[in-house]
Amino acid sequence: MVTADGHSAPAAVQVRQTAMRSHRCGDPRLADAGETVTVCGWVAHRRQHGQSLQFIDLRDYSGVIQCVVDGTVDVRSEYVLKITGLVTERPEGTVNEALATGQVELRDCKVEVLSVAKPPPFPLDDRADNVDESTRLTFRYLDLRRERMQRNLRIRSTVLAAIRTALSPLGFVEVETPLLMPSTPEGAREFIVPSRQFPGSFYALPQSPQLFKQLLMVGGADRYFQFARCLRDEDLRADRQYEFTQLDLEMSFVDQQDVLDVITSAVLAATEAITGGPVPPVETMTWQHAMDRYGVDKPDLRFGMELVELTEVFAGSGFKAFAGVGAVKGIRVPGGSASHNRKALDTLTDTAKKLGAKGLVWMRVGAAGALESPVAKFLSEAELAGIVEKTEAREGDLLLLVADEWTTACEVLGQLRNSLGRPPAGEGGFRFVWVVDFPQFVGIDKETGRPKPGHHPFTRPHPDDLDKLETEPLQVRSRAYDLVLNGWELGSGSIRIHEPELQQRIFDLIGISREEADRRFGFFLTPFGYGAPPHGGFAFGIDRLVASLAGEENIREVIAFPKTQSGLDPLTGAPTRVDERQLKELGVRVVAAVPPA
Amino acid sequence: MVTADGHSAPAAVQVRQTAMRSHRCGDPRLADAGETVTVCGWVAHRRQHGQSLQFIDLRDYSGVIQCVVDGTVDVRSEYVLKITGLVTERPEGTVNEALATGQVELRDCKVEVLSVAKPPPFPLDDRADNVDESTRLTFRYLDLRRERMQRNLRIRSTVLAAIRTALSPLGFVEVETPLLMPSTPEGAREFIVPSRQFPGSFYALPQSPQLFKQLLMVGGADRYFQFARCLRDEDLRADRQYEFTQLDLEMSFVDQQDVLDVITSAVLAATEAITGGPVPPVETMTWQHAMDRYGVDKPDLRFGMELVELTEVFAGSGFKAFAGVGAVKGIRVPGGSASHNRKALDTLTDTAKKLGAKGLVWMRVGAAGALESPVAKFLSEAELAGIVEKTEAREGDLLLLVADEWTTACEVLGQLRNSLGRPPAGEGGFRFVWVVDFPQFVGIDKETGRPKPGHHPFTRPHPDDLDKLETEPLQVRSRAYDLVLNGWELGSGSIRIHEPELQQRIFDLIGISREEADRRFGFFLTPFGYGAPPHGGFAFGIDRLVASLAGEENIREVIAFPKTQSGLDPLTGAPTRVDERQLKELGVRVVAAVPPA
Repeated sequence: MVTADGHSAPAAVQVRQTAMRSHRCGDPRLADAGETVTVCGWVAHRRQHGQSLQFIDLRDYSGVIQCVVDGTVDVRSEYVLKITGLVTERPEGTVNEALATGQVELRDCKVEVLSVAKPPPFPLDDRADNVDESTRLTFRYLDLRRERMQRNLRIRSTVLAAIRTALSPLGFVEVETPLLMPSTPEGAREFIVPSRQFPGSFYALPQSPQLFKQLLMVGGADRYFQFARCLRDEDLRADRQYEFTQLDLEMSFVDQQDVLDVITSAVLAATEAITGGPVPPVETMTWQHAMDRYGVDKPDLRFGMELVELTEVFAGSGFKAFAGVGAVKGIRVPGGSASHNRKALDTLTDTAKKLGAKGLVWMRVGAAGALESPVAKFLSEAELAGIVEKTEAREGDLLLLVADEWTTACEVLGQLRNSLGRPPAGEGGFRFVWVVDFPQFVGIDKETGRPKPGHHPFTRPHPDDLDKLETEPLQVRSRAYDLVLNGWELGSGSIRIHEPELQQRIFDLIGISREEADRRFGFFLTPFGYGAPPHGGFAFGIDRLVASLAGEENIREVIAFPKTQSGLDPLTGAPTRVDERQLKELGVRVVAAVPPA
Repeated sequence: MVTADGHSAPAAVQVRQTAMRSHRCGDPRLADAGETVTVCGWVAHRRQHGQSLQFIDLRDYSGVIQCVVDGTVDVRSEYVLKITGLVTERPEGTVNEALATGQVELRDCKVEVLSVAKPPPFPLDDRADNVDESTRLTFRYLDLRRERMQRNLRIRSTVLAAIRTALSPLGFVEVETPLLMPSTPEGAREFIVPSRQFPGSFYALPQSPQLFKQLLMVGGADRYFQFARCLRDEDLRADRQYEFTQLDLEMSFVDQQDVLDVITSAVLAATEAITGGPVPPVETMTWQHAMDRYGVDKPDLRFGMELVELTEVFAGSGFKAFAGVGAVKGIRVPGGSASHNRKALDTLTDTAKKLGAKGLVWMRVGAAGALESPVAKFLSEAELAGIVEKTEAREGDLLLLVADEWTTACEVLGQLRNSLGRPPAGEGGFRFVWVVDFPQFVGIDKETGRPKPGHHPFTRPHPDDLDKLETEPLQVRSRAYDLVLNGWELGSGSIRIHEPELQQRIFDLIGISREEADRRFGFFLTPFGYGAPPHGGFAFGIDRLVASLAGEENIREVIAFPKTQSGLDPLTGAPTRVDERQLKELGVRVVAAVPPA
């Protein structure tokens, strides 16, 4: 990649050219016709054409090129070849519009077999999507050759680069925090690592770099970020792995909007790097608004069907189920009347009850706003008209109403809204939204009578609500915020408490004495006594963001080497038994063994 | 950081401005005089000036600004303040040229105390360099506030960014490989992680992503890189920590020069990002040349004093100690005659013997090339003249000669050269050198009679030497290469063997049967049977590179939160005992305990 005169070739050449090839398989175009090129790659398809010729589709990550090769060359699927040939315009009628290289082919080919290959256990194209995942993971090195997986790998890499490029000019310092951490009983279950130097003692792998990111602020780092590798020993499912990567970020001398602005510019840069075009601006809404209108704290804005407030309509209703309850709310399913027969409605009602509602009221909207419903006869004309007006119901719609505690009404309808309207991954564009002003406390602990913290107890209360902390704790908003994409919570953050006095006030409220605080959080509170700056930060999961941008439902599709849902790596066989001698050095012994299946 | 009209402010403003400040402490200049600014930071120094005034030096990572403040405001060292004041030219005679902000000060200051602070346990300036390291690490969050540490953090971050920026246009895909790996008995001692899902089984933390990087090549990723977090459970010392970060890189369809070019451009970009200026080009030399001229495989090119070949001079010598030995080699210490008295020369001789030489011959160079030496009387005029000619000796120089096996002569003089001439870290510029053509084997195993591999057994032999593999194995060069900076080995790499047949030929040579190979390396060899591309790569330690660029001898100075040499984190207390319940879930029990000191 250094030219004869010692200068570097331009990037476009450097990206494709090596000692073994002049072009990548996906590079040749009609404009290159007449040029002799050398490509290297894997045999994707092979078609014999009489005795004398064969067509070979040679594949690398950049694409596929058709090569016309002597029919006697012994070549099979997934052999690795080096082919030198003349870029030639394809004969009329044989152009393949689906391929970027489809207007040309290589002729007069010289073929060198670089590696032979056994037949792959499954076809390395879209048909592999239906192969059992455990097989795909056992042969991940073959699965990764597929266009879909190469694309996902590149999308992930592009997202990381775009975010770094967005943060880099803003004064952030990238810091790698330790993987060998102290064990903390707080939070999720952690992985531990026995120490050989001190047998019987253990490090813990980081669930997040929360401690260190805040210490960096106390240490004057001002603005920190890291793509942090984090691990949690929790049961796995489609959107969770033991290991995950989060964009971890913290800033000093800021308020909430400063943090939101930085993250907003980072995720928009990442999204535009993938979509290639402008993305809708990131909205901001309060938690109260999100619950009121979407019934969840992670609203999916790709579709309407918002929750409608109907409490006022039934303020003086004679229908007891609707009057004097906390709230009556409804959603309108456009055109849903015909698509929901009685059985479907019963299922929805069951779902609502399972979610905690006392019941679900359905109404079919007929001509001229007539409402057909089991409860219609209990409602006044004015109430019926009020429903139609507030929900903007039209003929053929289906209305679903819940009357209950405000929280229950919101949550049940929010779940129904999602299950009835949510588009699949990859559809409906990318709708980011900040949810802010989360409650500082999420209820009163029945045993202790004390408020329960909504986030961790270091989250800063909203400055306007400080005087309500002791008197009306459930009315206190916090400086906590979530970033939501298409109904997925990407991550969360907060402005932190930096003053020991305010921190102790919160601890007092939730029933943590000074002694208990020192014992549990001393590693945190001691540094803050030496002069902590006001600061706040954010962390969000890269796996979920990348999956969304790649149109994948399952984060395992955007992780190069994921574990199965039971935590196995079918490729390497991890986890495994280890040497007794090694365990002895660490001062531990296995006392119960369940071998991996 | 969003302006009133909804547009983003320019980066120069975004990097400094937040809701709480308009400038960083290091920003104000004479051109800003007359502007009212708000800065936030820590009290670095405070000088009372009569009753009515005090001078406060406020510090953040960007620098220090002097603020003239009402003398009655109660402020102490390391308090966190927000100060709004008028940028004012300093009175004549009070300009501080040592400070970037030294021409101005803030006047008419309004001070807000954001946090109070206990007195720090050591002064947060250069005096802390002499504080016991364990104290510095216990209060790392204070140590990091110092200019030196902030500078080191930023240098590290800049190096990471510069390398990524260099690789990004070259088609590399960044992939995060797993932290929870299979345990492998090969290589260094690894950390293990008990599995809760399968009690009695363990994951291992990566010593390097070697397995996965090569599988990515088999998987068609073409060009991969990652700043990989790696861990080795080895005894710690100044240039080694349990955890380290390496630039890990692999490329397909390349030869050695392709890899060297990419790494060269990356390290030069990193170096120039720190020095701000051009850096000497990276040299390339063979291992043979490095040993012959520098006596080590990691030559420090910042100084001369190269080894001189003298074997020919003594080809027919009557002095038995010099005739008929493997090699006679010498180094010339310019002006070293006067600075080495008899005692110093005895010490050098002892050192040489400890290093394995039979002896060391010294010669003082007098007027007109006269040589004063205990052995001078045994040598002919022609031999004495030959020594002077070959070493280019001048009056006042000291010559040191070793006659021994070639390897011993080289190694002993190489060590002496380093100990006599090597400049300290931070001096002599940055001299990168590639050492290539390492021997494929490093000797014959006395027990088995078979050659011992120099690198791992997957390293590709030099293509010109393939026919010597079985007949003259010790003459076979490999496609292995090291990158050396100022005498430090930054990292190493190789072109790999991708063909199963050649791999088995190497295994046969070193005495690994097909069955043993399958058992030990099956996870590696099986994938290669499905079509591996020719590939090669490199890995180098970021800690050592950053330390060199920052002028630090000890890598712990460029790691935010390092462990001590006994593997403790005095800040968090890690490692610690963990809950019995947690161990029970993992199916392990502590059988021997040595509590951390």
